[in-house]
Amino acid sequence: MTTLHQPPATLAWHGGPSGYLELIDQTLLPRQCRLIQCRTADDVHEAIRSLRVRGAPAIGIAAAYGLCLAMQHAEDDEERWFAALKRAVAHLASARPTAVNLIWALRRTAAAAQRLRGQVPPTQLGEALLAEARAIEQEDRQTCLAIGQLGAGLLCDGMGVLTHCNTGRLATGGLGTALAIIYCAVQAGKQLHVYATETRPLLQGARLTAWELLHSGISVTLVCDSMAGHLMQQGRVQAVLTGADRIASNGDTANKIGTYALAVLARHHGLPFYVAAPVSTFDLSLSEGTQIPIEERSGREITHPCGVQAAPDGVQTYNPAFDVTPAALITAIVCEHGIIRPVDSQHVALVAGKAPHPRGSTVPLG
Amino acid sequence: MTTLHQPPATLAWHGGPSGYLELIDQTLLPRQCRLIQCRTADDVHEAIRSLRVRGAPAIGIAAAYGLCLAMQHAEDDEERWFAALKRAVAHLASARPTAVNLIWALRRTAAAAQRLRGQVPPTQLGEALLAEARAIEQEDRQTCLAIGQLGAGLLCDGMGVLTHCNTGRLATGGLGTALAIIYCAVQAGKQLHVYATETRPLLQGARLTAWELLHSGISVTLVCDSMAGHLMQQGRVQAVLTGADRIASNGDTANKIGTYALAVLARHHGLPFYVAAPVSTFDLSLSEGTQIPIEERSGREITHPCGVQAAPDGVQTYNPAFDVTPAALITAIVCEHGIIRPVDSQHVALVAGKAPHPRGSTVPLG
Repeated sequence: MTTLHQPPATLAWHGGPSGYLELIDQTLLPRQCRLIQCRTADDVHEAIRSLRVRGAPAIGIAAAYGLCLAMQHAEDDEERWFAALKRAVAHLASARPTAVNLIWALRRTAAAAQRLRGQVPPTQLGEALLAEARAIEQEDRQTCLAIGQLGAGLLCDGMGVLTHCNTGRLATGGLGTALAIIYCAVQAGKQLHVYATETRPLLQGARLTAWELLHSGISVTLVCDSMAGHLMQQGRVQAVLTGADRIASNGDTANKIGTYALAVLARHHGLPFYVAAPVSTFDLSLSEGTQIPIEERSGREITHPCGVQAAPDGVQTYNPAFDVTPAALITAIVCEHGIIRPVDSQHVALVAGKAPHPRGSTVPLG
Repeated sequence: MTTLHQPPATLAWHGGPSGYLELIDQTLLPRQCRLIQCRTADDVHEAIRSLRVRGAPAIGIAAAYGLCLAMQHAEDDEERWFAALKRAVAHLASARPTAVNLIWALRRTAAAAQRLRGQVPPTQLGEALLAEARAIEQEDRQTCLAIGQLGAGLLCDGMGVLTHCNTGRLATGGLGTALAIIYCAVQAGKQLHVYATETRPLLQGARLTAWELLHSGISVTLVCDSMAGHLMQQGRVQAVLTGADRIASNGDTANKIGTYALAVLARHHGLPFYVAAPVSTFDLSLSEGTQIPIEERSGREITHPCGVQAAPDGVQTYNPAFDVTPAALITAIVCEHGIIRPVDSQHVALVAGKAPHPRGSTVPLG
């Protein structure tokens, strides 16, 4: 067993129903690891909107705790209490309307109070909200661990592993998704070397993954996205491992832009391409990946790297935040229920279909 | 015929033997297009060293004119004059020791004076230097035009063309290499849409290619390097067109990092992958691309995009400046003598071997 150092928790609730949420301000990473306290729902709203907390699972947890904060000083009248709850859900959900777990976690937390309506006085409903938010956080931690332990067997001692974007502690309430597999494999005594792509345009690989892995004592080399092919050609990489933002029922996978190119390159070099994601990432209402909406973001992310203008005024840009990797290019998908391999409709249904996720299929991409 | 707007010349000599060199300070692009005057060899040395002028052909031309400046106030004694010439060649060559055309152009310019040794007084040798520098510039302009006109036939009306790094006017004394093909195709009335990759780490695509194409009125969209696969998957690109830094005798091609991944992606999508380069880029002494040395540059280019720290202190980096694309992935190579297709030793020898380039094969990568 290798002992890994741990950075501060990405987010943590302190105290009881009248407590507060503390989280790492990820916009300051890697230059500064500052904890900020959220004592109102507005604080949480701002933290999500400004990407101080990001990663769909982490956003979901933060929003659930944000709902607890919103209701700390709510009126004692039941009808008014639930009206305020509804407004708070809508307010927090608006912080980042495309994040999957944000809406899902808010609805789940609110439902926990709804179930007790008429049975307990409103003063006790805050405790129910907090219990549900804690449950979401705890379940996410367990999901990450299950993904990590199941997936660790896919990685062999001595491997170079290429990963993209940030899929670790900073993106979840636990160890992460793809990075959880790396953490668990290293803890099991395997020597790995991680190549982290910087992940333009927002540099989550450089800013977050490199920081997180360095902090944990895991051997990591930062490269530009364009260097992945050369790394494979040089024999430095033996497996590619990424997360996912939405997976269709046939296994087609939407993930951070650049993932598809990595899958093509892996196939060209005969390397396995693995995806790690919780069951909540599957959208079984979609038959294939072409139905997944691709979010297009501001061109300023491309023209102004790190806020500095690099491109001429007036240049056209195209900034899709995600791309879709066809199931045929994916060697296996690791979720908390098992490993989907081969990746096709039948095996997705067998493994990911075990316990349908409570969120609706109309929730947009996170 | 479509009329294209032209930005100021990348570099230009003003006056006779006692004149001066003017060039665009490319470090200020795209925010500012400022011309600077080089009136001494030290000015030229600094401009090359600081990347105010870059691109192998442009560097070669600048260095040739730098030699003219160095000798403007040389002593009248022949022996001392040639000793000073030798020192000036060594000084200018040290500005960027890996650039191919820098050394080649300096040797060629000095040789022009050497041929007249003992036949004319030193005062007239400066005229010989200037005539040779002008010849190098003029030949480069013709080479670019020949590449552009030959290659234009490869592009069809309505195509989306993906290009990488900067291979245009800013990199040469003429229209460029890969971009010359685009300029010539558009001038011939073809409607093209260019996708320019930003080209991390130094962003030549964002800073220079986007600026150059915008200035010329050519339709261009700037994307991150990681978006190329998605663009091809979406059917937005019908051809990939890049330059080259060194080409082995079997057609294996070293070019800006990321080129190899584009070639793999083009093959996966059934798209043609074209390389454009002058004959001087071929190194026929090398049998294959694995023999081409790959320059590794400072990790700071990765960790500090646009000079701003984005990665944690102490992170390992790997920053190869070039990669090698095997000939088998290249549809055709366009040089001033013709189009090499298929790309193999036989066809490289037939087309590029027509007129051996005067520089030695030991000149390192530019």
